[in-house]
Amino acid sequence: MLTNLEHLGLAVKDLESATALYTTLLGQEPYKREHVASEAVDTVFFQVGGSKIELLAGTSPDSAITKYLDKKPEGIHHVAFEVDDIRVEMVRLRAAGFTILNDEPKRGADNKLVCFIHPKSANGVLVELCQSI
Amino acid sequence: MLTNLEHLGLAVKDLESATALYTTLLGQEPYKREHVASEAVDTVFFQVGGSKIELLAGTSPDSAITKYLDKKPEGIHHVAFEVDDIRVEMVRLRAAGFTILNDEPKRGADNKLVCFIHPKSANGVLVELCQSI
Repeated sequence: MLTNLEHLGLAVKDLESATALYTTLLGQEPYKREHVASEAVDTVFFQVGGSKIELLAGTSPDSAITKYLDKKPEGIHHVAFEVDDIRVEMVRLRAAGFTILNDEPKRGADNKLVCFIHPKSANGVLVELCQSI
Repeated sequence: MLTNLEHLGLAVKDLESATALYTTLLGQEPYKREHVASEAVDTVFFQVGGSKIELLAGTSPDSAITKYLDKKPEGIHHVAFEVDDIRVEMVRLRAAGFTILNDEPKRGADNKLVCFIHPKSANGVLVELCQSI
Protein backbone atom coordinates (compact mmCIF):
# COMPACT_ATOMS: atom_id res chain seq x y z
CA MET A 1 0.00 0.00 0.00
CA LEU A 2 1.18 3.50 -0.85
CA THR A 3 0.88 5.37 2.43
CA ASN A 4 2.25 8.85 1.83
CA LEU A 5 3.51 11.26 -0.80
CA GLU A 6 6.98 10.98 0.68
CA HIS A 7 8.77 13.48 -1.54
CA LEU A 8 8.82 15.35 -4.80
CA GLY A 9 12.16 15.34 -6.62
CA LEU A 10 13.14 18.43 -8.61
CA ALA A 11 15.96 18.33 -11.16
CA VAL A 12 18.01 21.53 -10.96
CA LYS A 13 21.14 22.75 -12.69
CA ASP A 14 22.60 24.96 -9.97
CA LEU A 15 21.99 23.47 -6.54
CA GLU A 16 23.06 26.55 -4.60
CA SER A 17 20.81 29.02 -6.40
CA ALA A 18 17.91 26.54 -6.34
CA THR A 19 18.43 26.00 -2.61
CA ALA A 20 18.35 29.75 -1.99
CA LEU A 21 15.19 30.11 -4.09
CA TYR A 22 13.33 27.25 -2.40
CA THR A 23 14.44 28.47 1.02
CA THR A 24 12.62 31.71 0.24
CA LEU A 25 9.63 30.07 -1.45
CA LEU A 26 9.05 27.53 1.32
CA GLY A 27 9.94 30.00 4.06
CA GLN A 28 12.40 27.68 5.76
CA GLU A 29 15.94 26.31 5.60
CA PRO A 30 16.65 22.81 4.25
CA TYR A 31 17.05 20.20 6.97
CA LYS A 32 19.55 18.00 5.16
CA ARG A 33 22.12 17.86 2.38
CA GLU A 34 23.33 14.51 1.13
CA HIS A 35 25.67 13.33 -1.61
CA VAL A 36 24.49 10.04 -3.10
CA ALA A 37 27.61 8.59 -4.70
CA SER A 38 25.80 5.64 -6.28
CA GLU A 39 23.55 8.02 -8.23
CA ALA A 40 26.14 10.79 -8.72
CA VAL A 41 23.78 13.39 -7.30
CA ASP A 42 23.89 16.06 -4.65
CA THR A 43 20.58 16.47 -2.84
CA VAL A 44 19.01 19.10 -0.58
CA PHE A 45 15.88 18.28 1.45
CA PHE A 46 13.12 20.50 2.77
CA GLN A 47 10.30 19.23 5.00
CA VAL A 48 6.81 20.56 4.22
CA GLY A 49 4.16 18.98 6.41
CA GLY A 50 4.40 15.22 5.97
CA SER A 51 6.26 15.44 2.65
CA LYS A 52 9.69 16.53 1.46
CA ILE A 53 10.97 18.56 -1.44
CA GLU A 54 14.23 17.05 -2.74
CA LEU A 55 16.41 19.20 -4.97
CA LEU A 56 18.64 17.05 -7.17
CA ALA A 57 21.75 18.11 -9.12
CA GLY A 58 23.99 15.73 -11.04
CA THR A 59 27.66 15.55 -10.10
CA SER A 60 28.90 13.75 -13.23
CA PRO A 61 27.90 13.50 -16.91
CA ASP A 62 26.71 9.94 -16.20
CA SER A 63 24.24 10.99 -13.52
CA ALA A 64 20.59 10.30 -14.42
CA ILE A 65 19.83 13.91 -13.43
CA THR A 66 22.55 15.32 -15.69
CA LYS A 67 21.26 13.21 -18.59
CA TYR A 68 17.69 14.28 -17.85
CA LEU A 69 18.69 17.97 -17.94
CA ASP A 70 20.60 17.41 -21.20
CA LYS A 71 17.21 16.71 -22.82
CA LYS A 72 14.63 18.49 -20.71
CA PRO A 73 14.24 21.76 -18.81
CA GLU A 74 14.49 22.00 -15.06
CA GLY A 75 11.38 20.92 -13.20
CA ILE A 76 9.69 18.08 -11.38
CA HIS A 77 11.68 14.90 -12.01
CA HIS A 78 9.78 12.32 -9.97
CA VAL A 79 7.21 11.76 -7.25
CA ALA A 80 7.98 9.27 -4.48
CA PHE A 81 5.41 7.36 -2.47
CA GLU A 82 6.19 5.68 0.82
CA VAL A 83 5.34 1.98 1.10
CA ASP A 84 5.43 -0.43 4.00
CA ASP A 85 6.98 -3.30 2.02
CA ILE A 86 8.60 -2.35 -1.26
CA ARG A 87 8.99 -5.95 -2.46
CA VAL A 88 5.28 -6.66 -1.98
CA GLU A 89 4.39 -3.54 -3.99
CA MET A 90 6.87 -4.41 -6.75
CA VAL A 91 5.25 -7.85 -7.16
CA ARG A 92 1.73 -6.38 -7.04
CA LEU A 93 2.43 -3.64 -9.61
CA ARG A 94 4.43 -5.86 -11.98
CA ALA A 95 1.51 -8.30 -11.99
CA ALA A 96 -0.80 -5.38 -12.82
CA GLY A 97 1.31 -4.52 -15.88
CA PHE A 98 3.47 -1.67 -14.58
CA THR A 99 7.06 -1.54 -15.81
CA ILE A 100 9.38 -1.51 -12.78
CA LEU A 101 12.83 -0.23 -13.71
CA ASN A 102 14.66 -2.23 -11.02
CA ASP A 103 14.75 -5.98 -10.56
CA GLU A 104 15.51 -5.46 -6.88
CA PRO A 105 15.09 -2.44 -4.60
CA LYS A 106 18.21 -0.30 -4.47
CA ARG A 107 19.65 1.97 -1.82
CA GLY A 108 18.56 5.59 -2.39
CA ALA A 109 19.03 8.88 -0.59
CA ASP A 110 17.66 9.53 2.90
CA ASN A 111 18.03 5.94 4.18
CA LYS A 112 15.51 4.40 1.81
CA LEU A 113 15.14 1.33 -0.33
CA VAL A 114 13.77 2.56 -3.64
CA CYS A 115 12.55 1.44 -7.04
CA PHE A 116 11.16 3.35 -10.01
CA ILE A 117 8.15 2.81 -12.26
CA HIS A 118 8.62 3.78 -15.91
CA PRO A 119 6.81 7.02 -16.84
CA LYS A 120 5.18 5.23 -19.77
CA SER A 121 3.36 3.09 -17.20
CA ALA A 122 1.98 6.07 -15.31
CA ASN A 123 0.75 8.82 -17.66
CA GLY A 124 4.21 10.33 -18.08
CA VAL A 125 5.06 10.44 -14.38
CA LEU A 126 8.28 8.90 -13.08
CA VAL A 127 7.07 7.24 -9.87
CA GLU A 128 9.42 6.16 -7.09
CA LEU A 129 8.40 3.77 -4.35
CA CYS A 130 10.45 4.06 -1.18
CA GLN A 131 10.65 2.17 2.08
CA SER A 132 12.49 3.43 5.15
CA ILE A 133 15.34 1.21 6.34
CA MET B 1 3.93 29.80 5.64
CA LEU B 2 3.64 26.76 3.37
CA THR B 3 2.33 24.07 5.69
CA ASN B 4 1.74 21.00 3.53
CA LEU B 5 2.24 19.51 0.09
CA GLU B 6 -1.50 19.64 -0.44
CA HIS B 7 -1.67 18.00 -3.85
CA LEU B 8 0.12 17.11 -7.03
CA GLY B 9 -1.78 17.87 -10.23
CA LEU B 10 -1.33 15.53 -13.20
CA ALA B 11 -2.41 16.56 -16.71
CA VAL B 12 -3.99 13.59 -18.49
CA LYS B 13 -5.67 13.16 -21.85
CA ASP B 14 -8.15 10.39 -21.01
CA LEU B 15 -9.51 10.84 -17.51
CA GLU B 16 -11.21 7.44 -17.34
CA SER B 17 -8.17 5.39 -18.31
CA ALA B 18 -5.92 7.51 -16.07
CA THR B 19 -8.33 7.06 -13.17
CA ALA B 20 -8.30 3.29 -13.67
CA LEU B 21 -4.51 3.27 -13.82
CA TYR B 22 -4.02 5.40 -10.69
CA THR B 23 -6.65 3.38 -8.83
CA THR B 24 -4.44 0.34 -9.43
CA LEU B 25 -1.16 2.15 -8.78
CA LEU B 26 -2.29 3.77 -5.55
CA GLY B 27 -4.28 0.71 -4.44
CA GLN B 28 -7.45 2.69 -3.72
CA GLU B 29 -10.47 4.31 -5.33
CA PRO B 30 -10.65 8.09 -5.83
CA TYR B 31 -12.63 9.88 -3.12
CA LYS B 32 -13.98 12.69 -5.28
CA ARG B 33 -14.73 13.78 -8.83
CA GLU B 34 -15.36 17.42 -9.55
CA HIS B 35 -16.02 19.49 -12.66
CA VAL B 36 -14.52 22.96 -12.35
CA ALA B 37 -16.45 25.03 -14.89
CA SER B 38 -14.33 28.16 -14.41
CA GLU B 39 -11.19 26.24 -15.45
CA ALA B 40 -12.91 23.93 -17.97
CA VAL B 41 -11.45 20.84 -16.31
CA ASP B 42 -12.72 17.57 -14.95
CA THR B 43 -10.82 16.41 -11.88
CA VAL B 44 -10.44 13.16 -9.95
CA PHE B 45 -8.90 13.14 -6.46
CA PHE B 46 -7.06 10.42 -4.55
CA GLN B 47 -5.92 10.81 -0.94
CA VAL B 48 -2.44 9.49 -0.13
CA GLY B 49 -1.44 10.19 3.46
CA GLY B 50 -1.71 13.93 4.03
CA SER B 51 -1.56 14.76 0.30
CA LYS B 52 -3.77 14.32 -2.74
CA ILE B 53 -3.21 13.28 -6.31
CA GLU B 54 -5.41 15.34 -8.64
CA LEU B 55 -5.95 14.06 -12.17
CA LEU B 56 -6.87 16.89 -14.54
CA ALA B 57 -8.40 16.68 -18.00
CA GLY B 58 -9.49 19.65 -20.08
CA THR B 59 -13.12 19.86 -21.18
CA SER B 60 -12.69 22.54 -23.86
CA PRO B 61 -9.98 23.71 -26.26
CA ASP B 62 -9.59 26.83 -24.08
CA SER B 63 -8.79 24.90 -20.92
CA ALA B 64 -5.28 25.51 -19.55
CA ILE B 65 -4.87 21.73 -19.35
CA THR B 66 -5.89 21.20 -22.98
CA LYS B 67 -3.46 23.93 -24.07
CA TYR B 68 -0.71 22.41 -21.91
CA LEU B 69 -1.23 18.99 -23.53
CA ASP B 70 -1.19 20.57 -27.00
CA LYS B 71 2.46 21.41 -26.36
CA LYS B 72 3.70 18.92 -23.78
CA PRO B 73 3.32 15.25 -22.95
CA GLU B 74 1.15 14.00 -20.11
CA GLY B 75 2.76 14.24 -16.69
CA ILE B 76 3.03 16.36 -13.56
CA HIS B 77 1.40 19.73 -14.23
CA HIS B 78 1.77 21.50 -10.89
CA VAL B 79 2.47 21.09 -7.19
CA ALA B 80 0.20 22.76 -4.67
CA PHE B 81 1.19 23.86 -1.18
CA GLU B 82 -1.32 24.64 1.53
CA VAL B 83 -1.04 28.02 3.21
CA ASP B 84 -2.81 29.55 6.18
CA ASP B 85 -3.32 32.96 4.55
CA ILE B 86 -2.91 33.09 0.79
CA ARG B 87 -2.91 36.89 0.60
CA VAL B 88 -0.06 37.15 3.12
CA GLU B 89 1.99 34.65 1.09
CA MET B 90 1.25 36.43 -2.19
CA VAL B 91 2.55 39.70 -0.73
CA ARG B 92 5.61 37.99 0.79
CA LEU B 93 6.56 36.14 -2.39
CA ARG B 94 5.91 39.07 -4.74
CA ALA B 95 8.21 41.18 -2.57
CA ALA B 96 10.84 38.42 -2.84
CA GLY B 97 10.71 38.58 -6.63
CA PHE B 98 8.43 35.67 -7.50
CA THR B 99 6.01 36.18 -10.39
CA ILE B 100 2.47 35.50 -9.16
CA LEU B 101 0.13 34.80 -12.06
CA ASN B 102 -2.99 36.13 -10.30
CA ASP B 103 -3.59 39.59 -8.93
CA GLU B 104 -6.12 38.16 -6.50
CA PRO B 105 -6.71 34.60 -5.26
CA LYS B 106 -9.28 32.76 -7.36
CA ARG B 107 -11.69 29.96 -6.58
CA GLY B 108 -10.18 26.58 -7.48
CA ALA B 109 -11.25 22.96 -7.18
CA ASP B 110 -11.85 21.28 -3.82
CA ASN B 111 -13.10 24.39 -1.98
CA LYS B 112 -9.86 26.33 -2.17
CA LEU B 113 -8.68 29.81 -2.86
CA VAL B 114 -5.69 29.44 -5.16
CA CYS B 115 -2.96 31.34 -6.97
CA PHE B 116 -0.11 30.22 -9.18
CA ILE B 117 3.58 31.11 -9.28
CA HIS B 118 5.16 31.22 -12.75
CA PRO B 119 7.43 28.23 -13.44
CA LYS B 120 10.22 30.62 -14.47
CA SER B 121 10.26 31.83 -10.87
CA ALA B 122 10.68 28.34 -9.43
CA ASN B 123 13.15 26.25 -11.45
CA GLY B 124 10.57 25.18 -14.00
CA VAL B 125 7.93 24.14 -11.47
CA LEU B 126 4.39 25.51 -11.68
CA VAL B 127 3.62 26.12 -8.00
CA GLU B 128 0.09 26.58 -6.68
CA LEU B 129 -0.67 28.05 -3.29
CA CYS B 130 -4.04 27.06 -1.86
CA GLN B 131 -6.04 27.99 1.19
CA SER B 132 -9.09 26.10 2.37
CA ILE B 133 -12.32 28.12 2.47
